[in-house]
Amino acid sequence: MNRWGELWEKSHRRIWTEAALEAMKDAGVDRLDALYVGCMSGGLFMGQEHLGAMLADELGLGPIPGTRVESACASGGLAFRSAYLAVASGAHDLVLASGVEKMTDVDGGAATYALSTAADQEYECFHGITFPGLYAMMARDHMHRYGTTRKQMAEVAAKNHAHGSLNPLAQFPMKVTAEQVMESVMVADPLRILDCSPITDGAAAVVLAPVEMARKMRKDTLVKVVASSHATDSIALHDRADLSWIGSTAKAAELAYQQAGIGPNDLSFCEVHDCFTIAEIMVIEALGLMDRGKGGTAAESGFSALGGKIPVNPSGGLKSKGHPVGATGVAQIREAVLQLRGQCGDRQVKNARRGLTQNMGGTGASSVIHILERM
Amino acid sequence: MNRWGELWEKSHRRIWTEAALEAMKDAGVDRLDALYVGCMSGGLFMGQEHLGAMLADELGLGPIPGTRVESACASGGLAFRSAYLAVASGAHDLVLASGVEKMTDVDGGAATYALSTAADQEYECFHGITFPGLYAMMARDHMHRYGTTRKQMAEVAAKNHAHGSLNPLAQFPMKVTAEQVMESVMVADPLRILDCSPITDGAAAVVLAPVEMARKMRKDTLVKVVASSHATDSIALHDRADLSWIGSTAKAAELAYQQAGIGPNDLSFCEVHDCFTIAEIMVIEALGLMDRGKGGTAAESGFSALGGKIPVNPSGGLKSKGHPVGATGVAQIREAVLQLRGQCGDRQVKNARRGLTQNMGGTGASSVIHILERM
Repeated sequence: MNRWGELWEKSHRRIWTEAALEAMKDAGVDRLDALYVGCMSGGLFMGQEHLGAMLADELGLGPIPGTRVESACASGGLAFRSAYLAVASGAHDLVLASGVEKMTDVDGGAATYALSTAADQEYECFHGITFPGLYAMMARDHMHRYGTTRKQMAEVAAKNHAHGSLNPLAQFPMKVTAEQVMESVMVADPLRILDCSPITDGAAAVVLAPVEMARKMRKDTLVKVVASSHATDSIALHDRADLSWIGSTAKAAELAYQQAGIGPNDLSFCEVHDCFTIAEIMVIEALGLMDRGKGGTAAESGFSALGGKIPVNPSGGLKSKGHPVGATGVAQIREAVLQLRGQCGDRQVKNARRGLTQNMGGTGASSVIHILERM
Repeated sequence: MNRWGELWEKSHRRIWTEAALEAMKDAGVDRLDALYVGCMSGGLFMGQEHLGAMLADELGLGPIPGTRVESACASGGLAFRSAYLAVASGAHDLVLASGVEKMTDVDGGAATYALSTAADQEYECFHGITFPGLYAMMARDHMHRYGTTRKQMAEVAAKNHAHGSLNPLAQFPMKVTAEQVMESVMVADPLRILDCSPITDGAAAVVLAPVEMARKMRKDTLVKVVASSHATDSIALHDRADLSWIGSTAKAAELAYQQAGIGPNDLSFCEVHDCFTIAEIMVIEALGLMDRGKGGTAAESGFSALGGKIPVNPSGGLKSKGHPVGATGVAQIREAVLQLRGQCGDRQVKNARRGLTQNMGGTGASSVIHILERM
């Protein structure tokens, strides 16, 4: 991936191509059989659909097939899964999985509208709600049911900014204290600006190949995909039995643990979808890292910090690293690969052997999970 | 599929669900393992991204995974290919491949803008061109190089409307004469309104399964996918060596014929992407049905009409059946299946044994081809 942020001087194609070329260089390949790109709203953010073909062309690799995959903020994870299934099907060997979003070239209202198309346009957004409002309702419900505190949410932001301060590519690498989070400007009660992931321009890419082919290509540490899962839930919050339970993540986690033959305690670290601080709290419950209702204690106790039992978002997460929606899921995979190779410098998870990535669309209408292992 | 047209009284989710339920009824299944949906611009046409999750929910089949795939006007074909690869990978067995677009709920200018995002936004559309203008340049080039006539293009429209008059689900089932086409209102010289496919609301869906599973499920005629291919070309016309040669279709056709072990003369019929009359002429050359430069003679001579050597677009094509962009590629597959089963009534191709579908994005920056055979 490249440095994320407000990349005014680069177009979406340049942003993506930088990441794609870096992934190919890292993999030591000069050709691809196919590429997949996750992008949430090429139409609303950039006025550009048809990114699969455009980017194959931009990379100079046409006529290889280029496929754009979308599942709102889980588009990147789903692009990776689609690339994985393409390799598994036997149709293609060397496949680039990538994601890109350029979100800052529209005004703030237009970005908020574009993001709202991840929720139910006819039943939710029609009435004026946007994502901070939806997650605020989930946060209120979690606080009401389980006694989760305002400060516990703030601790998630403080932890992820502490991790992000060690990531040279993060958009907001500054450290913040829980107090600063709780004093930052209100967005949608109880969520404040430092509870929210930012609007970001960025891209990420990785190269997949069949294991036997990868073994022949390089002698250093390889990373293997041992589980890939995808599940959905109702898109509108009002259709959920439980506002603060991410059912799609719980279902995808169940499938992923089955495929990998492991449980949550076998993970060295996780990269999860902390689009809002409350999201990380709910997600680590759905992943089984903490009991239901206890997610708020993970950051507070140090459980999920670097050096804790299971570090969550060593990269800084969406919160600090940034959240170019279509790229996020692929950047999670990239972080997992670097951690498993032991290449993360100051933010390295000790003895990282197995990592889980969880990427989520909307308020959890879709979740995509992968488990990766060092070979 | 359902009846296509201006479906003011139905939302996109209803349009899609009608088609999905009809496909499941036809297949005799009450569950699915996954669904794929092709949609070009959920954001610009409907203000709704995240369609995979939304439609799994709407169908009442959550938590099954729902994936939205986009490649401009080839989104439907690519959704089918993605579903096919998912089955081939072993990840899923019963998979719905579908497409939907609701294009009429925005004003005319907004629809033209949304469609233009299939071309190169920074290098083409920025300067004001839209799709009729791009195809008009391709038409002028074809006329100049090969002597293709205005009347030959009109004959494509006349043929496809004649076929569409036999299709009860077509948006514009009226017959037109070549003279009427040539006298219709000018859109972008030399293309007139009756050379252009319409703006349409519609959906289409089919169910895929592994062959052995399908054999156990039903005793009547099955249709097998014997080739699936996808290729790209430069997205901007100015980067092409030849303005009137659809290189992505030629490449995808080469791959598809190899996979199926056949050549163009072994086809009983084709469903191709006649977004403009000139497109059908160029595509049948790229498919090898006619020599390069001779595509204009196919409709004129009756070669591509029902009863001719290789009927092209027995469904009426995009021209008469309609063109809800994300659904078109899946509707082509549906027509091929019905033709191979012998269920097409007055528009039945005699002894239909093997059919090819060709779905194209933009001015041919992407092409997706499938070959289907009666088992």
